[in-house]
Amino acid sequence: MAASIIDGKAFAATVREKVAGHVARLKEENDITPGLAVVLVGEDPASEVYVAAKHKNTVAAGMASFEHKLPADASEEELFALIDQLNADPKVHGILCQFPVPDHLNERRVVARIDPSKDVDGLSVVNAGLLASGEKGLVSCTPLGCLMLLRDQVGNMSGKNAVVIGRSNLFGKPMAQLLLQESCTVTIAHSRTQDLAAVCRRADILVAAVGRAEMVKGDWVKPGATVIDVGISRIPHPEKPGKTKLLGDVDFAEAAEVASAITPVPGGVGPMTIACLLANTVTACCRANGLTEPEGLTA
Amino acid sequence: MAASIIDGKAFAATVREKVAGHVARLKEENDITPGLAVVLVGEDPASEVYVAAKHKNTVAAGMASFEHKLPADASEEELFALIDQLNADPKVHGILCQFPVPDHLNERRVVARIDPSKDVDGLSVVNAGLLASGEKGLVSCTPLGCLMLLRDQVGNMSGKNAVVIGRSNLFGKPMAQLLLQESCTVTIAHSRTQDLAAVCRRADILVAAVGRAEMVKGDWVKPGATVIDVGISRIPHPEKPGKTKLLGDVDFAEAAEVASAITPVPGGVGPMTIACLLANTVTACCRANGLTEPEGLTA
Ligand SMILES: NC(=O)c1ccc[n+]([C@@H]2O[C@H](COP(=O)([O-])OP(=O)(O)OC[C@H]3O[C@@H](n4cnc5c(N)ncnc54)[C@H](OP(=O)(O)O)[C@@H]3O)[C@@H](O)[C@H]2O)c1
Ligand SMILES: NC(=O)c1ccc[n+]([C@@H]2O[C@H](COP(=O)([O-])OP(=O)(O)OC[C@H]3O[C@@H](n4cnc5c(N)ncnc54)[C@H](OP(=O)(O)O)[C@@H]3O)[C@@H](O)[C@H]2O)c1
Repeated sequence: MAASIIDGKAFAATVREKVAGHVARLKEENDITPGLAVVLVGEDPASEVYVAAKHKNTVAAGMASFEHKLPADASEEELFALIDQLNADPKVHGILCQFPVPDHLNERRVVARIDPSKDVDGLSVVNAGLLASGEKGLVSCTPLGCLMLLRDQVGNMSGKNAVVIGRSNLFGKPMAQLLLQESCTVTIAHSRTQDLAAVCRRADILVAAVGRAEMVKGDWVKPGATVIDVGISRIPHPEKPGKTKLLGDVDFAEAAEVASAITPVPGGVGPMTIACLLANTVTACCRANGLTEPEGLTA
Repeated sequence: MAASIIDGKAFAATVREKVAGHVARLKEENDITPGLAVVLVGEDPASEVYVAAKHKNTVAAGMASFEHKLPADASEEELFALIDQLNADPKVHGILCQFPVPDHLNERRVVARIDPSKDVDGLSVVNAGLLASGEKGLVSCTPLGCLMLLRDQVGNMSGKNAVVIGRSNLFGKPMAQLLLQESCTVTIAHSRTQDLAAVCRRADILVAAVGRAEMVKGDWVKPGATVIDVGISRIPHPEKPGKTKLLGDVDFAEAAEVASAITPVPGGVGPMTIACLLANTVTACCRANGLTEPEGLTA
């Protein structure tokens, strides 16, 4: 085992502490409490777990957490009325609607309804455009988390070859923009890419966000590369009958022999997402109040 | 000389003809005349030439051309009042402000003032975001022109390795998005890229937009590649004293020995830009009027 294991869980804890420090300062110096509103439509059990985790972390950081649950048959009109109310509420600095929403609602329209300056998930067209234009906006939480891990691990990324596997709006495309902003030479690969192994082998920084368990083999990794594994696949546990296990997109055991650093699954990228949601909320709060935003919490 | 020369001048003429056909149909069937408004602030001689060319082409396509000139010392307030008036005018379907504007004006703020659905230069944050999100918007004219040439030349680009040199908001970044949308594996290179020659040699589709005369040498080109040369540098003419000459980013003579197809400078990408401005105006006009937009004029 050559690679150092990037401890995302520990790093996320430091981000959450930093956030909590800024929250305490905002309360004390400015009498402002950053607030995050989470909207859940329907009763998807996985979504309820996520929303509960977000609530817990928000409160633990000293922020105000506003939970809004709408019934599964809530109309677009009802949902939009709630979003409009949250957009107008000065105590709410971040708004996110937990996806997936029931089929009769359209995710793009829901995101578009959220005030871009409160869109802490960074999913709106305006925030995608700000990122693409190199202007200040709010960046999607998981790519922002990967950026923080990479800055910590690699330092200056200028001139490095970065390969992102995956081109979703949620992850692959914003991740590529962030790496380009760091002056990497960026390659975006996806399901149509030919000889993906060869493409990956050129990467000093390899980010995999596909959702295919252990697709990236050890000999796809350039010796000394930094590997960020975003993928999450749940498979039946090989040893414990009836239990499941999480796997990343990278064959961890093989890749760890070749890479210089690698994120595990679980415990790598995963914990960074909520930490960055809190970070985005503090950033949005500072901007909304005309205060200097903290360093190190944004792209 | 192995490569076929991509005749951008001739292709642009076919695009302009197509546009003129749609304009005639819109007039006849819907009693609508697409209209393009161009705003020029100050008296930059090069800008006056561009604006005159746009006017001539707009009129030749049967569209309405509205020219607005403001003095070099026009305030942001005056310029914004004009843009607001054009935004509200139903006869105006496309608006562009000729850049550069005088120093006391801010280009990003000017672009942001234009209604995104009339931003036929495709430079606004909203249009960048729509492109980045894979949604319908208006695409920057020069990358759109390159896409049209590539579709005509290459056909299906899925799985091809595309390399874009340059990462400007105006060209490199939207070009990369378009190639990704065509399912190329896309690499974005720039001034910090290491071993640019090797990166280029992997490209089935090589797009250069730097502004450094003949930087891309013949041995940077993969045999059989399609080369799109966007760069424009004006140098003193080697044979005619006192005259100047245009050069692209690619050493044309060398690259033409290796590539399968290549755009010349001048006469390649250049003429496509105005043709795509007209195309965007017709697209914007159809959308504004709830009519099906013509095929082949957008991304
Ligand atoms: N908090 C977190 O840790 C977090 C957050 C977000 C996502 N994730 C995980 O990251 C993974 C990706 O998420 P996503 O939302 O981006 O997924 P997605 O929207 O499904 O995108 C997957 C991407 O992978 C590409 N792909 C599919 N098969 C491939 C193959 N054989 N070779 C190369 N590329 C292939 C697809 O290419 P095409 O575009 O050509 O189809 C697509 O661009 C998932 O496992 C997800 O659970 C984790
Ligand atoms: N109608 C047309 O035909 C048309 C339209 C638009 C542009 N153009 C021409 O296209 C060229 C580019 O235009 P632009 O607006 O995109 O220019 P730009 O904003 O100046 O961008 C130039 C890009 O080239 C990169 N670059 C500079 N030196 C380099 C080097 N040695 N190796 C690799 N990359 C290098 C820069 O990298 P960094 O980001 O790292 O600085 C930058 O991303 C210009 O010649 C322009 O005249 C023509």
